[in-house]
Amino acid sequence: MFDGPLDTLIRQLASLPGLGGRSAKRIALHLLSAKGTKLDSLIKALTEASKSINTCGTCGNLDSSDPCRVCRDPSRDKTILCVIAGVADLWAVERTGAFRGQYHVLGGVLSALDGVGPDQLTINELLQRLRGGEVKEVVIALSATVDGQSTAHYLMDHMDGMNVHVTRLAHGVPIGGALEFLDDGTIATAMKSRASL
Amino acid sequence: MFDGPLDTLIRQLASLPGLGGRSAKRIALHLLSAKGTKLDSLIKALTEASKSINTCGTCGNLDSSDPCRVCRDPSRDKTILCVIAGVADLWAVERTGAFRGQYHVLGGVLSALDGVGPDQLTINELLQRLRGGEVKEVVIALSATVDGQSTAHYLMDHMDGMNVHVTRLAHGVPIGGALEFLDDGTIATAMKSRASL
Repeated sequence: MFDGPLDTLIRQLASLPGLGGRSAKRIALHLLSAKGTKLDSLIKALTEASKSINTCGTCGNLDSSDPCRVCRDPSRDKTILCVIAGVADLWAVERTGAFRGQYHVLGGVLSALDGVGPDQLTINELLQRLRGGEVKEVVIALSATVDGQSTAHYLMDHMDGMNVHVTRLAHGVPIGGALEFLDDGTIATAMKSRASL
Repeated sequence: MFDGPLDTLIRQLASLPGLGGRSAKRIALHLLSAKGTKLDSLIKALTEASKSINTCGTCGNLDSSDPCRVCRDPSRDKTILCVIAGVADLWAVERTGAFRGQYHVLGGVLSALDGVGPDQLTINELLQRLRGGEVKEVVIALSATVDGQSTAHYLMDHMDGMNVHVTRLAHGVPIGGALEFLDDGTIATAMKSRASL
């Protein structure tokens, strides 16, 4: 029922994560009903992002400079490296302000089901960075899923004998989480690694 | 924490209807992680839409030609005119295939609260079209809300003595429901059993 350009636009929008046919139509209408302003500034923002944002050759972050602003920052601790699965995780850790070291984006986690092996991830690049000798501690910050944890073990095996201290994020009760609704695994882990008050 | 172009892109995406900060970040990452393909084709679709899609001067539909494909279609009945609030409603009615006449987009409904008066809508253009004498029936297909129904009554008053048969969508449209979000079956049924006002 729609003609060429409108149909193409709606299909393009509907293919974005979290959007479907209806939300895509709503967004298309919203953009087209204020064409001069909203549509043009979105096109400009996308074009600008397409031109200037690249993957950092050192850590894998997305930034308009390479090395990225985290790798470039002289105030950050170069002896501690946080390994995360993706850029979204890097942003999540960075938002907390609780980490002032460097990052390494793996590009995913090992997964037999999805056919992701070590060569699809930046594991070799990670080991190469560690061989530089500057890094003293590696914090493995992968999701607490089966794939995340087996990736953590794979990394640990390969960092063996490299003279780096390997740590992982603590497991436990999430802040604000009601004990009653937590899964058994989380409660059992939190009980095992209970801390003195 | 983000730099210029990335921050601009995320804020632009977050301002779209139905999206917030998190979904905007997710979409930005999705686009940037496959830059060569997805981002460029979205830019192309938006640019194409910006260039070629305009408001139809006759009915107010959005289309890449003016008059639009509905107004241009010789197989459609020019004696029956469906009045809807917005383009989303036109698409919703059109999707059902239950209507083969022409449309008139009002551009909203009268609303004392939102300060929408008759001059903000295309009511004069509608009356002008009716004075042409070709239209025999006007189907008022406005949402079953207070504002929609008072707009319907306002229109009916102004079409009085114009020798057009004024009908409205049958009840079956749930009270308080917005036309844009109704299922096709309800819209089609309501279109078939439209009643005299």
